[in-house]
Amino acid sequence: MSWLELPLDTPFGLANLPYGVFSREEGDRRVGVAVGDAVLDLSALAERLGAGWAPLVAGPVLNPLLAAGPATWREVREQIGEWLGEARRADAVRRHLVPADGLRMYLPFEVADYVDFYSSRHHAENVGRMFRPDSAPLTPNWTHLPIGYHGRAGTVVVSGTEVVRPQGQRKAPDEPAPAFGPTRRLDIEAEVGFVVGVPSTLGEPVPLAAFEDHVFGACLVNDWSARDVQAWEYVPLGPFLGKSFATSVSPWIVPLAALQAARVAPPARDPRPLPYLRDEAAPWGLDLALEVRLNGHVIARPPFATMYWTAAQQLAHLTVNGASLRTGDLFASGTVSGPEPDQRGSLLELTWNGRDPLTLPGGEARTFLEDGDEVTITATAPGPGGQRIGFGEVRGRVAPSR
Amino acid sequence: MSWLELPLDTPFGLANLPYGVFSREEGDRRVGVAVGDAVLDLSALAERLGAGWAPLVAGPVLNPLLAAGPATWREVREQIGEWLGEARRADAVRRHLVPADGLRMYLPFEVADYVDFYSSRHHAENVGRMFRPDSAPLTPNWTHLPIGYHGRAGTVVVSGTEVVRPQGQRKAPDEPAPAFGPTRRLDIEAEVGFVVGVPSTLGEPVPLAAFEDHVFGACLVNDWSARDVQAWEYVPLGPFLGKSFATSVSPWIVPLAALQAARVAPPARDPRPLPYLRDEAAPWGLDLALEVRLNGHVIARPPFATMYWTAAQQLAHLTVNGASLRTGDLFASGTVSGPEPDQRGSLLELTWNGRDPLTLPGGEARTFLEDGDEVTITATAPGPGGQRIGFGEVRGRVAPSR
Repeated sequence: MSWLELPLDTPFGLANLPYGVFSREEGDRRVGVAVGDAVLDLSALAERLGAGWAPLVAGPVLNPLLAAGPATWREVREQIGEWLGEARRADAVRRHLVPADGLRMYLPFEVADYVDFYSSRHHAENVGRMFRPDSAPLTPNWTHLPIGYHGRAGTVVVSGTEVVRPQGQRKAPDEPAPAFGPTRRLDIEAEVGFVVGVPSTLGEPVPLAAFEDHVFGACLVNDWSARDVQAWEYVPLGPFLGKSFATSVSPWIVPLAALQAARVAPPARDPRPLPYLRDEAAPWGLDLALEVRLNGHVIARPPFATMYWTAAQQLAHLTVNGASLRTGDLFASGTVSGPEPDQRGSLLELTWNGRDPLTLPGGEARTFLEDGDEVTITATAPGPGGQRIGFGEVRGRVAPSR
Repeated sequence: MSWLELPLDTPFGLANLPYGVFSREEGDRRVGVAVGDAVLDLSALAERLGAGWAPLVAGPVLNPLLAAGPATWREVREQIGEWLGEARRADAVRRHLVPADGLRMYLPFEVADYVDFYSSRHHAENVGRMFRPDSAPLTPNWTHLPIGYHGRAGTVVVSGTEVVRPQGQRKAPDEPAPAFGPTRRLDIEAEVGFVVGVPSTLGEPVPLAAFEDHVFGACLVNDWSARDVQAWEYVPLGPFLGKSFATSVSPWIVPLAALQAARVAPPARDPRPLPYLRDEAAPWGLDLALEVRLNGHVIARPPFATMYWTAAQQLAHLTVNGASLRTGDLFASGTVSGPEPDQRGSLLELTWNGRDPLTLPGGEARTFLEDGDEVTITATAPGPGGQRIGFGEVRGRVAPSR
């Protein structure tokens, strides 16, 4: 396949080619492509080889490439594939391959708006059972639309950024008044995020079939959550400070083109969705296998293929009122939880709201996160010809409240 | 006071000096200051007179000036006041004063994150009485914290932008399933917005006393709302498509320095707020008189001084979990409604959810907005020495669904 001789099981083979932003020295942010254990300095190579699109990947963020649209995305990807595959380019390319170890990775794109969905039926049912035990687990709207809300774009941070334990108001139902202090129920949510490249016009919905015309690729998301803060604040206008302190994303954006072999049929929907959400012609179920690690130990393996609403449906829904898209919009799936107890993407569900602590190897017990804990989420997808498509990781360590 | 001979009752006298972005020709966006019936071309004048801060006001947005901080804001404001007051500058200044009529105004700043609060007790009680008639009108958290949520920054538009009637899912409680179509309950919310200039550090709360170190000024906001869409979607994660299609702002940002004479004591709070929300030392109640017009007729006069939570408290709350601020963050007050029926800032309240239609002069009745309707919100505040501080207007006309 290539002079590179990558191992077949590398998460970053030639079928993947995800984009990120890295530096070797502080301040010199370049666009890179993950290739095996190395990063291709695309900013430098594209300029050196005189690619017409070199200015789009000059850094310091991916936004110019995102905005360029699908024809350019294809051209850039094919060209990179050729450069990596052609022995005659080996010397030029090798000079711009740098070992991934020791590089600093940055937030790969400037986030415009951030929307978080709630599209795992298992997750929504678990939450409903815990917090509304006397009602149906799903609210009546859940099977009719992908529920979502806007989060804080300015606190989206790249993997590796420490997460300071947030303070806030919290009140248990049996307490007379709220108290203030560090959250006692710091949690994670394992999610998959989608990055918008091509903007749309205010007042004009983006139909489901136009998903690939607007969305560039996907990454992993950890939607850190302070459950006690959230529980006290969220009625009636939804989550706010319980979520807005940090949302971590993986540094590599996997292009949709790398995910074609991972496409699967989404679960059957009952009732049948309204016409704008019907996706028989463009099903975007994705067979991504997520893993959640706490201090190095796997605590959950959420299967993304079980998500009830796909990213294409989410995009159609979020624009159906005429809301416009901007380059850099990020929308996340919501917590990915499968039907099995060890497939749940949050500690809230894994410990059933703290009732059933997890025991880590070594005997330590956890309900919610303690200071110093480190959470890592990874994912892989099937690629063509037995290759694996890796997402890299989104990682964060909890620092004490300041 | 000045060679300008402005009428005493002008909304844009020398005590105001709000900033905006205008053009005479398409594409040539400049920073301007409203002065009487004219706009001072600050981009041109500052460059001509060699002000050191001229690059901050070169356009096409106010963000560089916003980011510069309070010392620079004071310096720029004092310098503009001197230029307008000194007879020896009259010729130079006059050359850069252009009639406001016929200028095109733009969104004056690039919006980073947009947060909408819910801080009028009268509004929250009205909504509670309508939608939860069997419960207490306020949720238990309401008197303990300024409830808020993130809105869509990418659909904040400047006054004058037409608002396309959004489509979406809506379901009345007695209907078996949702239907899709143009909203039947298009509404407005008259609000006041605050614009963040100086960013803050992730993980570090901004105390209430630092309000003036971070916030540059205020504008008017119309938070357009599709009530039927909102009612069906908002449980459990809050408003989403019912709000995200458009939020209009006035083109002039009134600096906090122009609002010092309008500061009043906020209403008494019971219970006493938690320490981070106590504002005795920095009360930011503001005596702004809003007017809402529908097709030219005044339909409400909401008094901003009745707001329960101030902008300084809102800022302290939204950062208390460590969420960082960015230059261009916009946070709005929530619908401003006073205690009297004609002081309510939404049609939802003015018509009591459509039960009591408004009759406009000429006999036309309205519950919610019809295609072609135009809504205009204006406000004034007391300034020094009997002057008025005007906010200009935020205006929008409803266009039919596409």
